[in-house]
Amino acid sequence: MRIALDAMGGDFGPPTLVAGAVMALREYHHIQKLYLVGDERQIESELEKHRFVDSRIEIVHSTQVVDMSDRAWSAVRRKKDSSVSRAVDLVKRGEADAIVSAGHTGAAVAASMIKLRTLEGIDRPGIAAVLPTQFNVFVLIDAGANIDARPDHLLQYAIMGSVYSRHVLGYKNPTVGLVSLGDEDVKGTELTKEVFKMLKLSSLNFVGNIEGRHLFEDPVEVVVCDGFVGNVILKTCESISVAIFKWLKDELTRTGMRKTGAFLARHAFNAIKEKTNYEEYGGSPLLGVDGICIIAHGASTPLAIKNALRVAAESIEQQVNPHIVEEVRHYHETTAALEPALG
Amino acid sequence: MRIALDAMGGDFGPPTLVAGAVMALREYHHIQKLYLVGDERQIESELEKHRFVDSRIEIVHSTQVVDMSDRAWSAVRRKKDSSVSRAVDLVKRGEADAIVSAGHTGAAVAASMIKLRTLEGIDRPGIAAVLPTQFNVFVLIDAGANIDARPDHLLQYAIMGSVYSRHVLGYKNPTVGLVSLGDEDVKGTELTKEVFKMLKLSSLNFVGNIEGRHLFEDPVEVVVCDGFVGNVILKTCESISVAIFKWLKDELTRTGMRKTGAFLARHAFNAIKEKTNYEEYGGSPLLGVDGICIIAHGASTPLAIKNALRVAAESIEQQVNPHIVEEVRHYHETTAALEPALG
Repeated sequence: MRIALDAMGGDFGPPTLVAGAVMALREYHHIQKLYLVGDERQIESELEKHRFVDSRIEIVHSTQVVDMSDRAWSAVRRKKDSSVSRAVDLVKRGEADAIVSAGHTGAAVAASMIKLRTLEGIDRPGIAAVLPTQFNVFVLIDAGANIDARPDHLLQYAIMGSVYSRHVLGYKNPTVGLVSLGDEDVKGTELTKEVFKMLKLSSLNFVGNIEGRHLFEDPVEVVVCDGFVGNVILKTCESISVAIFKWLKDELTRTGMRKTGAFLARHAFNAIKEKTNYEEYGGSPLLGVDGICIIAHGASTPLAIKNALRVAAESIEQQVNPHIVEEVRHYHETTAALEPALG
Repeated sequence: MRIALDAMGGDFGPPTLVAGAVMALREYHHIQKLYLVGDERQIESELEKHRFVDSRIEIVHSTQVVDMSDRAWSAVRRKKDSSVSRAVDLVKRGEADAIVSAGHTGAAVAASMIKLRTLEGIDRPGIAAVLPTQFNVFVLIDAGANIDARPDHLLQYAIMGSVYSRHVLGYKNPTVGLVSLGDEDVKGTELTKEVFKMLKLSSLNFVGNIEGRHLFEDPVEVVVCDGFVGNVILKTCESISVAIFKWLKDELTRTGMRKTGAFLARHAFNAIKEKTNYEEYGGSPLLGVDGICIIAHGASTPLAIKNALRVAAESIEQQVNPHIVEEVRHYHETTAALEPALG
């Protein structure tokens, strides 16, 4: 499998991205080729620091970078030689099987939509983030690709999230919940009320509206929302678990007795910390484009980049796209025929 | 001070609400009068269970209840004798100084807006929830009153949140952040981009867009967002901290050594648990109405209701409304004059 890494995007630039690439190549021997796309000189100099030579690496030089202050669509149109555009080009030409980017999310989404196009039946792609609870993991879709979502986009997210949940996470008949303000179908915005009706008619295992408080206490397997809300949920979750563990550490080191207690119980903390550490998840697939694009955190560490490359490799193996196309077609053949009855 | 409690609203009904009222009257001697508004027979029977007789209690009979499946505005118009409407009436007539409701949030907001009206210069009220971090507490506004927010509503939330933060939480010049997808002003929805411009022009201590990840790692003092997003943040935060502590408990009781460790370190857990337990916060003021209305959790326990009554009593003492009116007037006298320059 061949992966194209946007070696410029991300809060910490090439040093972190190249370090993550080196970690991944050392660990994952099934990666056959890794394109590092970006400024050749910077990438080479980073590789030299690691004294890392590997024939699987190919540097693809590009002269531009999408800045965080650029507007997504115009950045893709204007900066033709940006690292993210060039990386997507490799997938488009069939030279790579997947792209990984920790840069400007909007630009990665726009480049993928423009160059790879969306899958048949899908209007807008969505980011599928996998989040852990004590009891399960769930898919949050859309975690930030599309902030101007229409009802049919959210319906498509529900279908794609269910397919992902079934084929990748192994849930047989995943439960689907719609993020809203209360359980009742009258609660929510015009958007969520419309989506509620559509999901109710579908053959998905829709359990109704869910509030933030259900996410972790009584979790469903697919959580559907627009990209603004999804991004807020994702970032809030990551932030609060990091913050609680820092806070705990602070409290646990306050006295000798607490320190001793913390030492005896250390495996309990590690068990949870490992499961909630977003660096272990690495990146989230952008579902709905005709190709594989993994969106990594802007603040990715080398460990997170390594894991994003692992997620890319897994996605190449899993090939969920044909299943998405089939499932959307099935929806239109069955449920969509009922829609006029909605009134 | 005289408080009107909606004794019917909330997931667990009169038993929980009356139990909370009894706890509050036993502890807070400065509450001079507590109206329990709702079905007389149910309320009396609950008081009997507690063998609680107190001359400060006055039952105000009402025959209707707003159900969670009712639409907010039509419920207020159609159910004239609902407990929440009757409770707001008491404030309107000057018989009570504040209302507390754990029922249908939308109905409490609508009843307050219709009967008490909004403050001069305020178009839509917002719920100001106080959330703890390791380092400070911050105000999240709007936590769920207004899901169809316009840019000027969010500006008003920023002003009200700053006033609350200064007068109640004691921050001298509170920092204000706008919830969005990235730090840059080009990131976000049409709504947030417009609000960004308005806040930048204002004399508030606006620090720019904040992402979910800043909420706890690098917190500001006033967090501004629309009611849908605010409610999702609030519920997610509550849910995730409850979930992490349950999870920790589970891991900490897995072996004898871990149990011993947990026992030695128990004060560390308690310190954090107490600070993150929403029951201790009880309720959040609905800022912007011409009166005092405290919104409690639907799933409030008696302890949460007791604390919501404490928050009501504190709000009666603090009287932030005149400060809000003054601050909004100041904004219009200074900043609004600059607005045409916005273009």
